[in-house]
Amino acid sequence: MDVRQYVDDNAAEFFGALSQWLTIPSISADPARHGDVRRSADWLAAHLRETGFPVVETWETGTTAAPGLPAVFAHWPAASLAAPVVLVYGHHDVQPVEPLAEWESPPFEPARRDGQLLARGASDDKGQVLFHALGTRAALAAAGADAPPVTLKLLIEGEEESGSPNFAGLLREQAGRLACDVVVISDTTMWSADVPSMCVGMRGLVEAEIHLRGPERDLHSGSFGGAVPNPLHVLADLLSGLHDDSGRVTLPGFYDSVLPLARAERELIARLPFDQKAWLADAGNSGAPAGEAGYSTLERVWTRPTAEVNGMWGGHTGPGGKTIIPAQAHAKLSFRLVARQEPAKVVAALQQYVRDAAPPGIEAAVTSSGHGVRPAFSPVDSVAVQAGRRAMQRAFGTEVLFTREGGSGPEADLAEILGAPLVFVAVGLDSDRIHAPNEKADMALLLKGAQAAAYLWDELAAAGAELTADR
Amino acid sequence: MDVRQYVDDNAAEFFGALSQWLTIPSISADPARHGDVRRSADWLAAHLRETGFPVVETWETGTTAAPGLPAVFAHWPAASLAAPVVLVYGHHDVQPVEPLAEWESPPFEPARRDGQLLARGASDDKGQVLFHALGTRAALAAAGADAPPVTLKLLIEGEEESGSPNFAGLLREQAGRLACDVVVISDTTMWSADVPSMCVGMRGLVEAEIHLRGPERDLHSGSFGGAVPNPLHVLADLLSGLHDDSGRVTLPGFYDSVLPLARAERELIARLPFDQKAWLADAGNSGAPAGEAGYSTLERVWTRPTAEVNGMWGGHTGPGGKTIIPAQAHAKLSFRLVARQEPAKVVAALQQYVRDAAPPGIEAAVTSSGHGVRPAFSPVDSVAVQAGRRAMQRAFGTEVLFTREGGSGPEADLAEILGAPLVFVAVGLDSDRIHAPNEKADMALLLKGAQAAAYLWDELAAAGAELTADR
Repeated sequence: MDVRQYVDDNAAEFFGALSQWLTIPSISADPARHGDVRRSADWLAAHLRETGFPVVETWETGTTAAPGLPAVFAHWPAASLAAPVVLVYGHHDVQPVEPLAEWESPPFEPARRDGQLLARGASDDKGQVLFHALGTRAALAAAGADAPPVTLKLLIEGEEESGSPNFAGLLREQAGRLACDVVVISDTTMWSADVPSMCVGMRGLVEAEIHLRGPERDLHSGSFGGAVPNPLHVLADLLSGLHDDSGRVTLPGFYDSVLPLARAERELIARLPFDQKAWLADAGNSGAPAGEAGYSTLERVWTRPTAEVNGMWGGHTGPGGKTIIPAQAHAKLSFRLVARQEPAKVVAALQQYVRDAAPPGIEAAVTSSGHGVRPAFSPVDSVAVQAGRRAMQRAFGTEVLFTREGGSGPEADLAEILGAPLVFVAVGLDSDRIHAPNEKADMALLLKGAQAAAYLWDELAAAGAELTADR
Repeated sequence: MDVRQYVDDNAAEFFGALSQWLTIPSISADPARHGDVRRSADWLAAHLRETGFPVVETWETGTTAAPGLPAVFAHWPAASLAAPVVLVYGHHDVQPVEPLAEWESPPFEPARRDGQLLARGASDDKGQVLFHALGTRAALAAAGADAPPVTLKLLIEGEEESGSPNFAGLLREQAGRLACDVVVISDTTMWSADVPSMCVGMRGLVEAEIHLRGPERDLHSGSFGGAVPNPLHVLADLLSGLHDDSGRVTLPGFYDSVLPLARAERELIARLPFDQKAWLADAGNSGAPAGEAGYSTLERVWTRPTAEVNGMWGGHTGPGGKTIIPAQAHAKLSFRLVARQEPAKVVAALQQYVRDAAPPGIEAAVTSSGHGVRPAFSPVDSVAVQAGRRAMQRAFGTEVLFTREGGSGPEADLAEILGAPLVFVAVGLDSDRIHAPNEKADMALLLKGAQAAAYLWDELAAAGAELTADR
């Protein structure tokens, strides 16, 4: 029996199980639902045991003082220790469901319509976690084996929709048991149902604020205007100077560690059927792209780092006029980062830029609340991505292209802490309405995901030595 | 009897009358005090009749639908129709008195202490209006004449502290009876009690707002950042570009009609004992002047036009981060103007600048709420200013220097509507605490003011033909 046949034969049972799981409202952001998040972990653990994983554990996270929500770990060793070790990442918690009135059917009563499965979590991420269980069984059935060709580890966390506050800690604590040669992420989207694709990168993020202080108090502009520095002018200069005429960020060293966009990826991006006009219309934009010279719109949002002013304020902002030189001026900024930029270095560069540019009489401070999110990236010619692409192509029977996505937390932590390359194998769609009312998953695509997972174990096993060379 | 002797002999009576006037709380901004503003006008009219003015009238202002507060007009013709006609401008309304608790003696119970007369309006402007009555009597006594050597007209308005809403209308309506060869303004300050000086100019003002609209709604910077225009970036560029590297305003044609600073005035400004360090400290500034290259601090605040950002806002300004490309960005600006800039032309130049600089995808609008205030200016070598300076020098027995001040409304209207040059003869001090608790006037300086007024009629009469040449 081949993989496709097995998946088709077991589709009904798969959707039955998934629908059962989807009835559990595992909303990690809602403390009232934390019991449901635990029930969700227990359901998944039981399902993985049924699937055949010899080791299944529920891992508590956080500390005694600040307990987190449980992750599920499962382990199925390959026959050979030499086989690559693959860690699959996903999450079993879901987004809140407000506004509830906009749901066409209740979010935790899975409904099927026109080949779609409607429920909170159907696409993000329960459907995409569960296809790995079906895929694993399909791979075993097709091979007539009782162990997968690679050592499989699953780590399915319960706090992703709450910002994964305990995830990096868990990875460090369990680094030994999580050790792997490649990490498979199933929590992204494809270009479209007709154009299967794989994500190969996520931009990172770091935020900062600029605070400028000039005179001790607002000054009368008739008495002082034109003769003392105005913090709003200085802020405008600082922010205007953040980009040069070609749209490049001017912070010292900002691009030093940026991996250039590979020609191969660039060519594949160009082949995506991208309707820029529709994209701009979706942005409520009157038809004008803007950004770094020399890059297309998709290249700009996927492959290039940015400096974005998210907010700015100072002086009189109420009705009417007030002829003052204000005492203070403020701005909030965020930087989208690409591999291999480091959030802390970008903040340091901003601090240096502001320090160097602030004139006498203006006290300048740059603050940053957090550590930021490192970018995640897998080169398109890497062994893991090539194996993933072959698996996807076998499942879809067509060429698979590449995309990138907005940044998220756990991916960069997985790559960094476990020291393994990432490969994104997922079948979500932008039209799945994740994080919004009426979330759905395309049932045919979930089955393709299961096939891709099954083929992926083969492909990764075949790449064996190349993946395990770094051990 | 000379002028000085007459003024000294009548000082007690003068301060008695002034103190009586100061008991009337003529706060034009407080509707509950409008009856007192009328009483104040009546008191002044009676006093001017006693002084000997043959024509004294109380002029209502505003419309039937929106009545204003009364001005007092007085007229004393010279013996000769050929004599210059002088219009004295002042106001009999006063500022509000809050916070009342900070007054050391009640604001409308005039008190004398160490040569100072303490009361609301003592300096601004009742004391400085009334010294003209004493000065006129001194001039007549010294000359043994029964009419002044110039035709005197007084126009003392009752709404100056409320923005003179009906003043320009009154001037237009009564332009015939107010026709004059020179306007004397007694509502400004001297450099200090030791350094008598005359104001020769007031900056004008015009305000405007810039409104930028980009996407229809705030966009997620992860999805769109770096590829669509950010209104905050555009605003920063626009505001930063308002000044060039030498601190000059870049609006097209901004300086075209600006009268250059005369060398004579520049030299006299340089001779003022200006303590820049103390001035900056007063501004709560850490010791850094800033502004247009090639000008001193006093030149910058007095003689040069400015573009000042008074407020700016857009995007997320609350706590925490929000990774958006905001839909809108806004700024409030004001421009200080010098002769002969026109407020409307400056707004038009800003509109052109913003229109030219806004990139595709950003909708830009410039709004301006009002008509602005034109600048007022009298060249230091003009006949009127030279006559005023000689009169001041005779009163003070020392050289009189020149200053300028922040803009105000009525002065530019007087010059514009009556078509006459201005001369500022006043003895207020910056330390008089006008508009603040414990307003006071230096009693010796008010008497100097009376002397200067008396000498001024002589000096203007002597300049006769030069002043009346334009009739």
